[in-house]
Amino acid sequence: MSAPLPEILHQLNADMREDPDWGAVAAYIPELGRIDPAQFGIAVATADGALHAAGDADTAFSVQSITKVFTLAIALGRAGDHLWKRVGREPSGRAFNSIVQLEAEGGRPRNPFINAGAIVVTDQVLTGCEPRETLGEIMQFVRTAASDDNIHINETVATSENVHGHRNYALAHFLASTGNLNNSPEKTLGTYFHHCAIEMSVKQLAMAGRFLIDSPQLPRMILTQRIRRLNALMMTCGHYDGSGDFAYRVGIPAKSGVGGGILAVVPGVASVAVWSPGLNRYGNSLKGTEAMARLARIMGWSVF
Amino acid sequence: MSAPLPEILHQLNADMREDPDWGAVAAYIPELGRIDPAQFGIAVATADGALHAAGDADTAFSVQSITKVFTLAIALGRAGDHLWKRVGREPSGRAFNSIVQLEAEGGRPRNPFINAGAIVVTDQVLTGCEPRETLGEIMQFVRTAASDDNIHINETVATSENVHGHRNYALAHFLASTGNLNNSPEKTLGTYFHHCAIEMSVKQLAMAGRFLIDSPQLPRMILTQRIRRLNALMMTCGHYDGSGDFAYRVGIPAKSGVGGGILAVVPGVASVAVWSPGLNRYGNSLKGTEAMARLARIMGWSVF
Amino acid sequence: MSAPLPEILHQLNADMREDPDWGAVAAYIPELGRIDPAQFGIAVATADGALHAAGDADTAFSVQSITKVFTLAIALGRAGDHLWKRVGREPSGRAFNSIVQLEAEGGRPRNPFINAGAIVVTDQVLTGCEPRETLGEIMQFVRTAASDDNIHINETVATSENVHGHRNYALAHFLASTGNLNNSPEKTLGTYFHHCAIEMSVKQLAMAGRFLIDSPQLPRMILTQRIRRLNALMMTCGHYDGSGDFAYRVGIPAKSGVGGGILAVVPGVASVAVWSPGLNRYGNSLKGTEAMARLARIMGWSVF
Amino acid sequence: MSAPLPEILHQLNADMREDPDWGAVAAYIPELGRIDPAQFGIAVATADGALHAAGDADTAFSVQSITKVFTLAIALGRAGDHLWKRVGREPSGRAFNSIVQLEAEGGRPRNPFINAGAIVVTDQVLTGCEPRETLGEIMQFVRTAASDDNIHINETVATSENVHGHRNYALAHFLASTGNLNNSPEKTLGTYFHHCAIEMSVKQLAMAGRFLIDSPQLPRMILTQRIRRLNALMMTCGHYDGSGDFAYRVGIPAKSGVGGGILAVVPGVASVAVWSPGLNRYGNSLKGTEAMARLARIMGWSVF
Repeated sequence: MSAPLPEILHQLNADMREDPDWGAVAAYIPELGRIDPAQFGIAVATADGALHAAGDADTAFSVQSITKVFTLAIALGRAGDHLWKRVGREPSGRAFNSIVQLEAEGGRPRNPFINAGAIVVTDQVLTGCEPRETLGEIMQFVRTAASDDNIHINETVATSENVHGHRNYALAHFLASTGNLNNSPEKTLGTYFHHCAIEMSVKQLAMAGRFLIDSPQLPRMILTQRIRRLNALMMTCGHYDGSGDFAYRVGIPAKSGVGGGILAVVPGVASVAVWSPGLNRYGNSLKGTEAMARLARIMGWSVF
Repeated sequence: MSAPLPEILHQLNADMREDPDWGAVAAYIPELGRIDPAQFGIAVATADGALHAAGDADTAFSVQSITKVFTLAIALGRAGDHLWKRVGREPSGRAFNSIVQLEAEGGRPRNPFINAGAIVVTDQVLTGCEPRETLGEIMQFVRTAASDDNIHINETVATSENVHGHRNYALAHFLASTGNLNNSPEKTLGTYFHHCAIEMSVKQLAMAGRFLIDSPQLPRMILTQRIRRLNALMMTCGHYDGSGDFAYRVGIPAKSGVGGGILAVVPGVASVAVWSPGLNRYGNSLKGTEAMARLARIMGWSVF
Repeated sequence: MSAPLPEILHQLNADMREDPDWGAVAAYIPELGRIDPAQFGIAVATADGALHAAGDADTAFSVQSITKVFTLAIALGRAGDHLWKRVGREPSGRAFNSIVQLEAEGGRPRNPFINAGAIVVTDQVLTGCEPRETLGEIMQFVRTAASDDNIHINETVATSENVHGHRNYALAHFLASTGNLNNSPEKTLGTYFHHCAIEMSVKQLAMAGRFLIDSPQLPRMILTQRIRRLNALMMTCGHYDGSGDFAYRVGIPAKSGVGGGILAVVPGVASVAVWSPGLNRYGNSLKGTEAMARLARIMGWSVF
Repeated sequence: MSAPLPEILHQLNADMREDPDWGAVAAYIPELGRIDPAQFGIAVATADGALHAAGDADTAFSVQSITKVFTLAIALGRAGDHLWKRVGREPSGRAFNSIVQLEAEGGRPRNPFINAGAIVVTDQVLTGCEPRETLGEIMQFVRTAASDDNIHINETVATSENVHGHRNYALAHFLASTGNLNNSPEKTLGTYFHHCAIEMSVKQLAMAGRFLIDSPQLPRMILTQRIRRLNALMMTCGHYDGSGDFAYRVGIPAKSGVGGGILAVVPGVASVAVWSPGLNRYGNSLKGTEAMARLARIMGWSVF
């Protein structure tokens, strides 16, 4: 690594804006469908407390599936290994919203990051609580992790997800039919759609991701062993059916969201958030993935 | 880490022998079926040139699928990224010998470590060569990596694999029917069964695995970027349908074989070989997996 | 055929009560789960206007999926071949409530008798109408066919189906997510659960089935060509994943219901209804299937 | 039916030649690939001993999968219901050469007419015999049924099938791997490819099909009950994944072959053979299916 990090991020931002192919934004709800794809932002929070950023780093975007990491951390904190009775830990080899595997495996989702698995995780966190309490707990976790109270749920997005959420209702009812849902599909999905509708900028997201760095320099939110396990799950399952490709090209644990965000962790070193709303064919950010690959190569951040 | 590595391995060997459940050996060929499951050996080759071992560390065993790492390294060296037109890089979400996904995806195996993918890799290395030459090249690579010429193929095992190899013949003919086989099924499988029948002790295997450590202290056989990519593939796909679980529990890239061996890599630090012939339900070594999990925890070797 | 039909039915009823294995009743809703399995009734309505019966021939039971034949006749009458854009005509090779094929085939159910297909058929009949009107039309069709106004829907069963209908809600939401549902899942399923909850005795059901006999002696409700096609669909798809076995053993078109009823048609000759609530492993009536096989053999009624 | 049969066939032949879309011939072996698609022949053998024909009725063509009906008759004659332990009786819901279902169902093919099932049937007939004897028995059955000794196997086609038969070898080896093959894949497939390479004209094929009419006017080769069951299997499984559509449109039991032939049975009345080498998307004869639909409608031959 020759250049300092701020300079590298600055250059990366410039490079990313050269290629006019920004990919296509998710169009399943109008709130995401009308976002301008030609945006890019990146932020790095390092273990020593610094935060560097470039590009559209202050624009709040819908973090969507990236919140699955936070709810999973909370669910594991509450249920421990008991959670794995309800959901597996293996890559799915299928699209994020596939219902096929759910039938083949009797209603136990393959991992907590595909939609079916994340619905079970939300259902677990919700058990014994009201949606309002659960969402309060999730928001508190995220805000504490980010040291930032100015993080909110976009109610319009949550409502729209519910209106266009037939596929997720299909998954939730299927889970209910196999006995793997403690709450009603409506209640669980209401909570799920809300936490997926959290909005953050890459600066806020990079800060919130610090709890996965596992550095003695940082305040500790969860145990080292749990951090390692969350990072392992992000490595093998964090990009749906493109997880193997991301591990091959980038080499660090990360979780993507359909809003175009990616949260990546360099164990012991840094938390990285990148955002560009145009997606590739796996439903992961096109420019975000490319930027992560370049940054990891320049910084020698691959864990391999 | 309080104790020195030799002491830790010594203790690990003792601990592993306490639990009388050794798992069941693979029984699909008699040569593997009659092996005594109550054996355990472990060896660690560190970047500084040391080799430490404990248990049955000098007993040669059939490394089987672990050789897929070596042939993949050779295939990538020869064909480069062109290889990925023929085989994918994603976890399969299926058993090692499944033919289902092959049909669903038009004859392109999901990754180079499931049987169908490894057959394609062998076919790639074989293209333009005779089996004798190809096997010579593979043996030379393994012996050079291990700095040990006393590594051999067990011809009886290779012959027995061929006799009992209907499932692999089904995969190879299916690949041929989709145009994804350059050589005849007989020729490709003959070569495949032979390199899977290589025998090594854990000491030899740990030594052979050093080419994946990527340390300036070690002689270089392949480029850093390729090492990282091989390690990434081992992390996401190295244990078939139990890869996610291994990443979660152990946290380092590794490849298992049905003979009960596991080769694991601690990037920049060490190459670890463990062997115990009894298997768990995924077809991976029962005691070997447990020992790797303990060793990684004690040494803090998780990459996450 | 040596004996006259009434005598044959009398003997068949006696024979069926000998074997103490009645199978297990459907238990997914309590209303079906508490029915005594040790019941058997059979009725035959012949083209010449006669009605013969034996056993529990006046007990009303939940006809369930048998109503799919009536709603399909109505849907074809209204939409014609346009219906086949929304649903196929091929045996599914899967269980009646499988969602797998729906995903593989983009939301077009394989045939109108598996649950997903019947939901689409109900949705088609419902289009432009209110549930009350649609159910009125279905009831009118059934009562006219049976020449019997004393046929009703069991509201308790319909309500219970809705409460325990997560699997059907999963199917309906999945259909909605692919754009193959004109009405809301709630509205379509409400109608679907109601028409499945129609109750008839075997006498009533045999009378209602006469519209599929295609005899000049009978009043005509639908065209000959449509009758033949409905019968063809019953032959290839009428017993879900046991349709091939029923064709092989019995050899006449028929539709089963989870309440233990079977409606069978001997083209040009007779309509047969049989009921025994205990089911075989395919979810079809155990004694009912056996009785149909014997009756068809005695009478030489196989179409083959 | 107003016109006499010869006149109807004459007209049908003329009508079929009007539409210039003949479909595409099977191209997986050169011997089939170079056949002129613009050919059409039809023949009807009636229970009273008459034989009527029109079009290219004397041209011998490769009957291919139609021979599966004859080998199944022989296998049932020899093994009886024991055969059904090795193969099912249900429509597959899949393409004729799919290997997916074979894996899902542990190596028991869904029915005797998909390739995997027909390979098992051939293997059953072959058990305890040499291929030469088995083929002799099959030829004798076909020649006796047709009352014609001038029916032969095309050795060039058989050889070519073997050369291009990777998909069938995949199926056979898979069956062997599950223990559902008594003979070697090479021996079973050698016999299978040979009986599929039988050549007949539609006149010969219609004559050979008479053994399925079940008329007291005809010499009896197999029992009535077995005839009915063979016809039932042809109805539900005779056109692979287009069986439901054929039953819906035509309404009589029939078996198609990739060479463009169809053998259909009107129970008690007639045996019909039609041939036109161009295929539709299910791999069944395009013009042959259309001609069968028209003929059945004109003659009122639907069994429904």
